[in-house]
Amino acid sequence: MVLNKNERIDALYAEGIKIIQSKDVFSFSIDAVLLANFPNIPKRGKIVDLCAGNGAVGLFVSHKTNAQIDQIEIQPRLADMAQRSIALNHLEEQLKVYELNLKDSLSVIKKDSVELVLCNPPYFKNLPTNEKNPNPHLAIARHEIHATLEDVIDVSSQMLKMNGRLALVHRPDRFLEILELMQDYRIAPKRVQFVYPKENKDANIVLVEGIKDGKKDGFKILPPLTVYSNTNEYTPAIKAMLYGQ
Amino acid sequence: MVLNKNERIDALYAEGIKIIQSKDVFSFSIDAVLLANFPNIPKRGKIVDLCAGNGAVGLFVSHKTNAQIDQIEIQPRLADMAQRSIALNHLEEQLKVYELNLKDSLSVIKKDSVELVLCNPPYFKNLPTNEKNPNPHLAIARHEIHATLEDVIDVSSQMLKMNGRLALVHRPDRFLEILELMQDYRIAPKRVQFVYPKENKDANIVLVEGIKDGKKDGFKILPPLTVYSNTNEYTPAIKAMLYGQ
Repeated sequence: MVLNKNERIDALYAEGIKIIQSKDVFSFSIDAVLLANFPNIPKRGKIVDLCAGNGAVGLFVSHKTNAQIDQIEIQPRLADMAQRSIALNHLEEQLKVYELNLKDSLSVIKKDSVELVLCNPPYFKNLPTNEKNPNPHLAIARHEIHATLEDVIDVSSQMLKMNGRLALVHRPDRFLEILELMQDYRIAPKRVQFVYPKENKDANIVLVEGIKDGKKDGFKILPPLTVYSNTNEYTPAIKAMLYGQ
Repeated sequence: MVLNKNERIDALYAEGIKIIQSKDVFSFSIDAVLLANFPNIPKRGKIVDLCAGNGAVGLFVSHKTNAQIDQIEIQPRLADMAQRSIALNHLEEQLKVYELNLKDSLSVIKKDSVELVLCNPPYFKNLPTNEKNPNPHLAIARHEIHATLEDVIDVSSQMLKMNGRLALVHRPDRFLEILELMQDYRIAPKRVQFVYPKENKDANIVLVEGIKDGKKDGFKILPPLTVYSNTNEYTPAIKAMLYGQ
C-alpha cells in the first residue's frame, strides 16, 4: 500500500476496518461512526455513500451486508484515499468509488435503484460571510461549496427505490430544513436520534432517516446518545461503536 | 372549600400548590408538570393557559411570576374545579378562568397582547375510527373533539405579542405537524426537549417552544429528560419538579 505524504492508517476496531487518513485533507470524525451505526443496513441490493470523503461510512457498514456499496466523492485526493482503503481491506468486489459531484450521481447510479443512501454532508452553508477553512480540501468537506443540502436530498430521492431510505447525519440547527426538504422531495422523515456531547448539554448532532414515498405516520424519536461521560471518557455506547463489545 | 363527589385535593409540593382533582373528569399528569417547567416564565405581562383542564399548568407557574394568568377551559366541570383551586391557593388576584372554547379566546384576550401561551392540548385526532373514552370529560380532554392542533396554534399566534412565545407539550408522533403548523402561523420553532419514559426507550413526550415572528435560526434541542430510572423510581430531575430540591 502506497501512503502519500502526511497520510496514516487508522482503524475502526469495532468493524475490523483500516482506513487511510490525512489531517491535511480529511479524517473521519465520530459523526461518520454514528451514521454507520444508525440505520438498519439492507442485506443486499445497492447502498450509496454520498459525500463519501475518505470512504469511512461505506467501509464501516461493509461487513454488515452483501449489498454493493457505491461511494460518490468530488475531491480527487479523497476519492483516491477511499480507493486505496478499499484495496487495503480487500473490498474491491463490494465497494466502488466514483470521483463525481453528487449532483452528477445519476450518470453512474440508476434512478429508483437504491435501497439506502448514507450521507455525511458538509454542515455549513456557503455564505459570503462564513469564515471558511483556508485549506480548500477541508473547506469543501465542511461548507456547501459544490452541493447544498437540497442537492443531497433531491439526488437521494431520485436514486432511491420506492420505500428506499435516506440516512443523514447533520447539525441540529439544520434540523427544520432537513425535515422540510425531505418532505419536499417525497421522503417521509421516520426515525430521528439526537446525540449530545455530554450530560445536560444541548444536542450537537442529529441523525435522521426517511423513507421514499413513505406514509406520514410512525415518526419516532430514538433514545438519546451521549458521547462523553462526566469524566471525559467515551460512554459505553460510543466505545462499543469504536472498539466493539 | 366545597369538594364535589369523587373529588380530592392533591398537591404539587415543588411549587407549594394544592389542586382539586377527580378521576371521573380529569387529573393532571406528569405532562402538565413538564410543561410548567419547560419555558422561561416571563416575570410580568400576560400568560395564557389554553386547554387548562383543572388548571394545573397555570397554577404550577403562578409562584414564578407576577404576570396575570388567564386560563381557558371549555368544560364547565373542569373550569369550576380550576376556579375552586385558585381560591384554595388564594390566587384570585393573579389567575382567572374563562369557560370557553379556545377558538373563542379572542373574545376575552386581546390580539397581540400575550407574553407566553402554555398549552397541554388533546393529543389524539378526532377520527371516526379512534377508540374514544366513553367518559365524555376524558374524551374531550384527550381527543380533538372541540378544537384541533391547528386551532390551538392559530389562536395562540393571534393572541401572542411579537416575540411572544408558545410552549406546547405533545406526543412525538405529532412533532412534524407541530413544526409545520407553527411555521404556517408565524411561530418559529426554537427550543425542543424530548422526554423518554426510561433509558433505551423512544421518546413519548415532546416539549416545543416557538417565538412569534422569530427568526429561523437558533433552533436548539435541549438535554434529554428521562422520567423513570431502571428501578422504576422517578429520576432526580423529575423528583425535583414534583417534590422540590
